[in-house]
Amino acid sequence: MRYIHTRSMDSAIVLVRALDLVGTFVFAMSGAALGVRRGLDLFGVLVLGWVTATAGGILRDVSIGAIPPAALASWPPMVLALVAGLLAFRFDRVLERLRHPVQFFDAAGLGVFAVAGTQKALAFGLDWPMAIMLGMISGIGGGIVRDVLTAQVPTLLRSEIYAVAALAGGLVVVAGAKVELDSTIGGLAGIVVCTSLRMLAVYRGWKLPVATARETTGD
Amino acid sequence: MRYIHTRSMDSAIVLVRALDLVGTFVFAMSGAALGVRRGLDLFGVLVLGWVTATAGGILRDVSIGAIPPAALASWPPMVLALVAGLLAFRFDRVLERLRHPVQFFDAAGLGVFAVAGTQKALAFGLDWPMAIMLGMISGIGGGIVRDVLTAQVPTLLRSEIYAVAALAGGLVVVAGAKVELDSTIGGLAGIVVCTSLRMLAVYRGWKLPVATARETTGD
Amino acid sequence: MRYIHTRSMDSAIVLVRALDLVGTFVFAMSGAALGVRRGLDLFGVLVLGWVTATAGGILRDVSIGAIPPAALASWPPMVLALVAGLLAFRFDRVLERLRHPVQFFDAAGLGVFAVAGTQKALAFGLDWPMAIMLGMISGIGGGIVRDVLTAQVPTLLRSEIYAVAALAGGLVVVAGAKVELDSTIGGLAGIVVCTSLRMLAVYRGWKLPVATARETTGD
Repeated sequence: MRYIHTRSMDSAIVLVRALDLVGTFVFAMSGAALGVRRGLDLFGVLVLGWVTATAGGILRDVSIGAIPPAALASWPPMVLALVAGLLAFRFDRVLERLRHPVQFFDAAGLGVFAVAGTQKALAFGLDWPMAIMLGMISGIGGGIVRDVLTAQVPTLLRSEIYAVAALAGGLVVVAGAKVELDSTIGGLAGIVVCTSLRMLAVYRGWKLPVATARETTGD
Repeated sequence: MRYIHTRSMDSAIVLVRALDLVGTFVFAMSGAALGVRRGLDLFGVLVLGWVTATAGGILRDVSIGAIPPAALASWPPMVLALVAGLLAFRFDRVLERLRHPVQFFDAAGLGVFAVAGTQKALAFGLDWPMAIMLGMISGIGGGIVRDVLTAQVPTLLRSEIYAVAALAGGLVVVAGAKVELDSTIGGLAGIVVCTSLRMLAVYRGWKLPVATARETTGD
Repeated sequence: MRYIHTRSMDSAIVLVRALDLVGTFVFAMSGAALGVRRGLDLFGVLVLGWVTATAGGILRDVSIGAIPPAALASWPPMVLALVAGLLAFRFDRVLERLRHPVQFFDAAGLGVFAVAGTQKALAFGLDWPMAIMLGMISGIGGGIVRDVLTAQVPTLLRSEIYAVAALAGGLVVVAGAKVELDSTIGGLAGIVVCTSLRMLAVYRGWKLPVATARETTGD
């Protein structure tokens, strides 16, 4: 690991590792739940859960040269993703009824991954606009790969404020770093902003504009 | 950047950087235009434009160890891709009527990316057959990811001489390097060959052969 | 190549290289055969063959920092994949009738790639659970990318014991390394276990369980 350690980064990294595990669990559950609905077998469900939880972080780590990627370097994220997948497989009917809690955890996972991704990219010396971008990729990459593997246009490209919330979270982290805010506080602020924005978008039905020339049949 | 600098490479790299920006703009426009037709929201359109413009180069850079990839290391390509995406979003009806100019710019972008990718891979010390391959990946990778994200079989796998033109452009670059041609001239020659071949294939309807055992229903 | 050489690894690597070529040929044929059935043109068929044969290994190499990836570092795998693709294109009707041999070679390729991937990841210093995981990714990655490029849900997520066989092969390799078995013997044992398990699953129709909440319409 070629991590560039600075004192102010260290406490952030501890926090981020803990939150990373929460995000991993939540995202794995969302992937596994989709796998169950699509009729995948147990293994497919577990793989889809693991991929959803880790693809974003792997994309980020490969891009910044953090080799091997965190998701492949140690086993706790994998075990957590598998446990989440098994729970989703076993209690799929319960998950169906828990739409609201699942949406909240998904929003929290998005916030955590976006913030952790931005901080890690900054720690690797990337410029701030690129760090925000990589934070967004960390947050949304897993969902995109999940949707591609189940042969659908990624939902987050089609509707609602999702990736925009991730960008907002990353922006808060960068702004905090500029004014030399403690990175733990900056990170928490970023998570709160991203998660709130996403939940508000869900409950108020906020959407981004759509252009006029789309195909009449949809697809 | 672990670039292996040689004097003859330097001028090529300046040229290639300039052309890279042209290619980025054109490819972003093609991705964004497809996003508009598929009814994506503003963000989806911008992401699809950015991904189309950068995925090929990111694949190339990750493969040759140019970390972070050029598309993530600085912000001009991102800004350019976003501007192209915004233009495609705003003037989508204009783009519809501009099929021919768009096809020309797309062919030019293909040539630029194929040539720049081949030269960068050579500069990183890859053998020439692999350098041509990576040039092709640079040129066609964005279009493939664009099509996968919109849930269709990549068009360039199905029809017409597209990737073959990219290979031809790369081959010209390699041939030029073997006879110690100035790399700027070699690069321009490669771009002209690739772009012309692609445009000829479009206007004359050249296609590659198809085997006989395909499914009768298509897909 | 940042290979960590140990004496016991060296002979394994020679074996693994030879088997890698067999696996490349077989997987390229499977990808190209699918391309023919989907009506791709000659180039599309060759690309699909090459991608199927190399995507798993490229994912593995990028993840462990083996840059450039073996599939891009030298030309024999590419030539082999192209020859396999040309054969599949020319003799597609023969391949149709050879379902059983093809399934056997595919199972053998899976075993080879899973074992080679696990050994390479161990040689790069990854923990054993992650090494098994990377072996699995090496074995199944190509098939997943092949299916994504032809716009279908990856078959191995949907049915039968495929990736599980890859995990079993990797486990044998790791177990062999723990008891300091010669790595050539351990590797061969892993290949036999993975291939047999896969063939048994095919002939006996073994499947993994499916959860109850799937969509009634399928997808």
